[in-house]
Amino acid sequence: MQKNLKMSLLVTGTVAFDAIETPFGKTDKIIGGAATYISLAASYFTQSVNLIGVVGDDFPADYIDFLNKKGINTKGLQVKEGEKSFFWSGRYFNDMNSRETLITELNVLANFDPIVPEEYAEPDFLMLGNLAPIVQSTLINRLSKKPKLIVMDTMNFWMDIALEDLKETIKLVNVLTINDEEARQLSGEYSLRKAAKVIQLMGPKYLIIKKGEHGALLFHENEIFYAPAMLLEDVFDPTGAGDTFAGGFIGWLAKTGDISFENMKRAIIYGSAMASFCVEKFGTENILEIPESALIERVAQFKKLSHFEM
Amino acid sequence: MQKNLKMSLLVTGTVAFDAIETPFGKTDKIIGGAATYISLAASYFTQSVNLIGVVGDDFPADYIDFLNKKGINTKGLQVKEGEKSFFWSGRYFNDMNSRETLITELNVLANFDPIVPEEYAEPDFLMLGNLAPIVQSTLINRLSKKPKLIVMDTMNFWMDIALEDLKETIKLVNVLTINDEEARQLSGEYSLRKAAKVIQLMGPKYLIIKKGEHGALLFHENEIFYAPAMLLEDVFDPTGAGDTFAGGFIGWLAKTGDISFENMKRAIIYGSAMASFCVEKFGTENILEIPESALIERVAQFKKLSHFEM
Repeated sequence: MQKNLKMSLLVTGTVAFDAIETPFGKTDKIIGGAATYISLAASYFTQSVNLIGVVGDDFPADYIDFLNKKGINTKGLQVKEGEKSFFWSGRYFNDMNSRETLITELNVLANFDPIVPEEYAEPDFLMLGNLAPIVQSTLINRLSKKPKLIVMDTMNFWMDIALEDLKETIKLVNVLTINDEEARQLSGEYSLRKAAKVIQLMGPKYLIIKKGEHGALLFHENEIFYAPAMLLEDVFDPTGAGDTFAGGFIGWLAKTGDISFENMKRAIIYGSAMASFCVEKFGTENILEIPESALIERVAQFKKLSHFEM
Repeated sequence: MQKNLKMSLLVTGTVAFDAIETPFGKTDKIIGGAATYISLAASYFTQSVNLIGVVGDDFPADYIDFLNKKGINTKGLQVKEGEKSFFWSGRYFNDMNSRETLITELNVLANFDPIVPEEYAEPDFLMLGNLAPIVQSTLINRLSKKPKLIVMDTMNFWMDIALEDLKETIKLVNVLTINDEEARQLSGEYSLRKAAKVIQLMGPKYLIIKKGEHGALLFHENEIFYAPAMLLEDVFDPTGAGDTFAGGFIGWLAKTGDISFENMKRAIIYGSAMASFCVEKFGTENILEIPESALIERVAQFKKLSHFEM
């Protein structure tokens, strides 16, 4: 796929170790984190991915080299000597739609200050992966130019413990991505159509509601788009699916530079296609090297899955 | 909408009273039953709907007159003197996706013998609404000609208490419609893609998996179609949504006489559109008189909701 070389994309979020247990097996500590999945997915579309994050000195240098080879600039990835990387461990239940957290060790993330290297300061696109809302807004405020589009991902955890910060931060963004339960929690409305209206009044003009195996919804003013999810034989590990979706979404927008509703639909399909690869293996394994032909084929499958002629 | 006058459609299923409680309110005994919803929905597409069912003498004659005025032939609707109609009462929980049964009084249904009037005996299309599988198969065996297409709806209740009968009956049908949990129960597979393969090997060449607010899936050989659900401000009462969907589906097929996969996609969209009207009010209220323009408009919304250009 021809990559755009002009539009720059700034990505932040966690860069971390995960240990994952699913009905199909379990992993030792493997590399994960929202910004890792986002950057990798976006790198299939654009060569100008700038990463801001923090890790400890336990984070493998050769994985950072690998990210660089994918065209991801890691100048903004702080490596804290003598400290440990963020670590999350979780177990998925049989339905793969619910999970329990076994271990959360914040480590370097506890005092993460998102320093913006000078060459990163004027991004065209900004993707805020999951982090404390106050860290996300700090980063926005440090940019020297307002990006063309700011997309923010967050989760129920921050709604539980930092709701006011979250509400302040979403005022600053154009697109919010959350799942259906989170949309209900944030809006106080069960109907997703009503929830979307309430959330759009909080700031984001665009809302993406991720429904896992049931697809994704895009809301903008009175328009709605419903993207299906790919029907896979097995979902092997859902970790990072939402982040990979976000990376494909913002990557496509950065590649095309087009933020119309019609193009956001395409971005959602690319995001969904990337996410469908992600869940077929543990961690980032299946999105490290996706052949272009496989991506094109999968996008075609999405069209076949959902199109009809009346 | 121009209705087809040539292809005949035979419908069976319950004709009943329901008492429904939802977070929005509750009803006294109102008219319900699978065959009622199916016939009403199908009557928007074809003038040749023949109904087989059974009621007691408590069933209002003016509702039967109303069905006749909709073009539904009720010669096969047995009215049992001195007996009572089937009665179901249920309560929906806040999420509207789960419910509990409060009362089930079989009454006339306990000994229902599906007698086929002579003029019904050679239907082009047969829609078996929810009933004991043995009653459904009895009706199939009494027809003097094999229909062009047999569609069968059933539910988990029969999987729990009459699984062997159910398995025998589904061998005789072309299309099975069940919900996602029922597909998992019947196949023993969690992945719907795997579940569909298992169920297709049981007999039905086509499988429709109804996912409520998450839309519907059509499987045939290696083809899959994913229809979205309409995003409504509120789902007022889900009772009969699946039957109304089935009625719109078979009604469209009977109208067009075309049972290709492409046309089944359209049939699913018409079924989904009919179901989206159904849930906007209690019982059959909102599908008694749907203006043609409203139906056309809603089908257009489905296309807008799910189509994208790459």
